[in-house]
Amino acid sequence: MKNRVITISREFGSGGRTIGKKVAEQLGIPCYDSELIQKIAEESGFDAKFVQEAGEYAPGGFLSNLSSRTFGPTNEDYLWKIQYQIISRLAGQGPCVIVGRCADYILRDKADCLRVFIHADAQFRARRIVQEYGERAESPEQRLRDKDKRRAAYHRFYTNMKWGHAQNYDLTLNSGTLGIDKCVEIIRDLY
Amino acid sequence: MKNRVITISREFGSGGRTIGKKVAEQLGIPCYDSELIQKIAEESGFDAKFVQEAGEYAPGGFLSNLSSRTFGPTNEDYLWKIQYQIISRLAGQGPCVIVGRCADYILRDKADCLRVFIHADAQFRARRIVQEYGERAESPEQRLRDKDKRRAAYHRFYTNMKWGHAQNYDLTLNSGTLGIDKCVEIIRDLY
Repeated sequence: MKNRVITISREFGSGGRTIGKKVAEQLGIPCYDSELIQKIAEESGFDAKFVQEAGEYAPGGFLSNLSSRTFGPTNEDYLWKIQYQIISRLAGQGPCVIVGRCADYILRDKADCLRVFIHADAQFRARRIVQEYGERAESPEQRLRDKDKRRAAYHRFYTNMKWGHAQNYDLTLNSGTLGIDKCVEIIRDLY
Repeated sequence: MKNRVITISREFGSGGRTIGKKVAEQLGIPCYDSELIQKIAEESGFDAKFVQEAGEYAPGGFLSNLSSRTFGPTNEDYLWKIQYQIISRLAGQGPCVIVGRCADYILRDKADCLRVFIHADAQFRARRIVQEYGERAESPEQRLRDKDKRRAAYHRFYTNMKWGHAQNYDLTLNSGTLGIDKCVEIIRDLY
């Protein structure tokens, strides 16, 4: 019997991480996010900051790096493999919430997943990243576009799935129009 | 004060129409779908079957027809205009559920919309169209692909929005994994 796992993909600033934590709290199950990054870092021997950033960059970036791949897997490929193993193991241990890191793809055959995608309009997210993350108040929109692009490219590279495409999820929620707490409620009740 | 309207876009066979009807029934508000097609037909003077089909074909289809457009609006453009007016009027009359017909786009500034997209995997939909619509049991998958393509192209042509892209909706639901009744419940409770 496969464990029931909630995977949450999210646009930067949409509150997906907050939603994941609240859902996990209300259900009394663990939520893996920065904790997961830490674990990956520990196992890989890489610096935690590098791991965090590698989780949002499609390897190579541009042609210059693609050529380096002809000589074997890149650091990002190595991290992907470790991440793959850790997420699979965590999901095998028991029910949990996993935020980001392509967990939906990694667990597609390994867990009974409720696959969620959280998004919101740019205005809502811009306000949030300034208020919650203490980001600079200057042009947060540019930063959002930048982050979204990276996440989409990373997801596409490793999963060959379109990030944010409704068909890839059980449900997608607009936290900007529905509100963070309503999103928590819907996901919790569906579990 | 704008009326509260639920718009439901849906993949063929996903049960979007059934969900819309049940939601409307439980909320005690009207649901417009085939009724809407009838109204459009009456006002346009076109045959109801033509109206139904025009709602799923991007005008022109191929280059041959694009050229005809240089001589003025096509029949489909004319229908789009009437459809636009009817949907705007219905939403102005009071709260309701509108299934399909790009209502989400048409009402974007005219109503307080809850924008929903319903989808499901091909297997679930194939079984449904054979059981519920009495479609031929032979290769329903081909028919699904065909219908989806048409709806996506139609939506794209008139709205310039990507059909099925999570960011265009308040929520998207997988009726195959969540079940028709659960979808009804979530939408009804959000209204």
